[in-house]
Amino acid sequence: MRFKRIGKQSILFNHPPKIISTASVVGPKEGEGPLKETFDLIIKDNLFGEKSWEKAESKILQEAVRIALEKVKLNREEIDLFLAGDLLNQTISANFAARQLGIPFFGLYGACATLVEGLILGSVLIDGAYAENIIAAVSSHHDTAERQFRFPREMGHQRPVTAQWTVTGAGAIILAKGEKGPRITGATVGKVVDFGIKDQNDMGSAMAPAAADTIIRNFRDTNTGPDDFDLIVTGDLALIGKTLAQQLIEREGYILGDKFTDCGLLIYDPVQDTHAGGSGCGCSAVVTCGYLLDSMKSGKYKKIMLVGTGALLSPLSILQGESIPGIAHAVVIENFI
Amino acid sequence: MRFKRIGKQSILFNHPPKIISTASVVGPKEGEGPLKETFDLIIKDNLFGEKSWEKAESKILQEAVRIALEKVKLNREEIDLFLAGDLLNQTISANFAARQLGIPFFGLYGACATLVEGLILGSVLIDGAYAENIIAAVSSHHDTAERQFRFPREMGHQRPVTAQWTVTGAGAIILAKGEKGPRITGATVGKVVDFGIKDQNDMGSAMAPAAADTIIRNFRDTNTGPDDFDLIVTGDLALIGKTLAQQLIEREGYILGDKFTDCGLLIYDPVQDTHAGGSGCGCSAVVTCGYLLDSMKSGKYKKIMLVGTGALLSPLSILQGESIPGIAHAVVIENFI
Repeated sequence: MRFKRIGKQSILFNHPPKIISTASVVGPKEGEGPLKETFDLIIKDNLFGEKSWEKAESKILQEAVRIALEKVKLNREEIDLFLAGDLLNQTISANFAARQLGIPFFGLYGACATLVEGLILGSVLIDGAYAENIIAAVSSHHDTAERQFRFPREMGHQRPVTAQWTVTGAGAIILAKGEKGPRITGATVGKVVDFGIKDQNDMGSAMAPAAADTIIRNFRDTNTGPDDFDLIVTGDLALIGKTLAQQLIEREGYILGDKFTDCGLLIYDPVQDTHAGGSGCGCSAVVTCGYLLDSMKSGKYKKIMLVGTGALLSPLSILQGESIPGIAHAVVIENFI
Repeated sequence: MRFKRIGKQSILFNHPPKIISTASVVGPKEGEGPLKETFDLIIKDNLFGEKSWEKAESKILQEAVRIALEKVKLNREEIDLFLAGDLLNQTISANFAARQLGIPFFGLYGACATLVEGLILGSVLIDGAYAENIIAAVSSHHDTAERQFRFPREMGHQRPVTAQWTVTGAGAIILAKGEKGPRITGATVGKVVDFGIKDQNDMGSAMAPAAADTIIRNFRDTNTGPDDFDLIVTGDLALIGKTLAQQLIEREGYILGDKFTDCGLLIYDPVQDTHAGGSGCGCSAVVTCGYLLDSMKSGKYKKIMLVGTGALLSPLSILQGESIPGIAHAVVIENFI
């Protein structure tokens, strides 16, 4: 059996798993943004018919899974494993979704890097013949996240310009064996990196060092560079974090130029007043499930690096004087035609 | 390549990963219990030299990893992946431990089933040749957990007889290729099961249905039964949950008898006044790392099923009228001589 790790932190898959289906569900604000045509469902209000935002978030996640299954005519019983997480304490959106779905479940917590964590583990399980069909899914919700991590939205707290807007949305990706189409050919597992940021309204700066570390690590482990990719896209660094990450990466001699973008910059229009841009597990998920994979299928991009970026923010540890560590994981997605 | 899934939810490993090292660190109360001789380190007070219980919990986790590495003379740089989680919001004990260790990290959340979740994913990664050395580790801390999920200990809140005592402790397990000694030969990934329990002082009843479901599923998937095991041991069902789970399993025709026990019953002596018994991620971890694996190496047990049991309790969703779903994952450990 060939050893599949390459370099210090990366994996090359023998039988790159195929992304056989995706679905995205977003809130009204995301549905007014520049990517509105790429989402599968835009809900009309953030409660989605539920009595609490938390219940709505779990329902959005379930809805994304339902649509992803429907697109490829798979039943829940045909899915071997549900790899999911979210930002809420005890990852309740994922737990309750798993209960309703009845699919064997591993809960993950990688903050906003959770989707890519799920894609890496899911790819290992498919590539290694431990499973046939796996769903990786995540959610976030503006109102549940702001209430838990910062201030309840109703308080009307002033948001600084470094603040990002937590995306209301969920994305679900089904992985399986397959030949043609977008396939996950490699991955890099990140380390926790902490540059000492303590401002929970500046998540981009907290995550940028981890994003840079993982992207550089992928280049080194796989002996590649920016020229080998059509796009390198981070999850939710937004304006400030993306600028910082680009500086850190280019300082190491890798010139990213226009090939580097961020889902948090793609999802909203500046006129939507989100300040630095989007954030949350749902941010990278809905942009990946819609715009990014659509662009691969249409031939715009042949090979991309998707880098999930997570700020391991805890309101409690902040009060105890701790800084906000970041983590980033990467998958390489290539379109086979 | 042989397909490694068996039945609906189980895996049989081609090259069962070996448990090459373990370490356990516990608090003073656990250090006075019947298993005190089996722990690697008993800390003298629950703060462990730190200014907060949360910082102490992360330090305990780091200490368990340090001892496990030292026992086999491995450096942190030789570990490919750190699979860890805990009970705190945003799994901060694991995050900060990962930051200090500098090992590539996947955060997991499976409540008190997290250790077994990590062992399953770690075994897949070793068995499938994606990694050489992996650490699976978890922690819990009586004071951090009680404060977060119920009442701060200082309030002196009356505990009902169904209540369990969250273990202060951390366990770390290093997995690698190997021939002789305890090896993980199989696994069953659980589903979320919910019988509608809403009492956060009765975690055992909330988890029992999931434990029963996973144990029965393992028997059916692998065409085995209680006679094929020397011991079937759950993580932290304690007195009430273990009794319930045993009833549910025996109702399906599998007579467990004396072969069934629970880490939450093993860790404390009834005179320690913990009511139903122990609980927490640390409960199954320190009992496994010490007593259970010692008993395998000494020849007392040749083949055991270790079932991590998690109550997906959220103080927020309880207030919103939700019940407490349970989840359980199993690994089969066999001693090769």
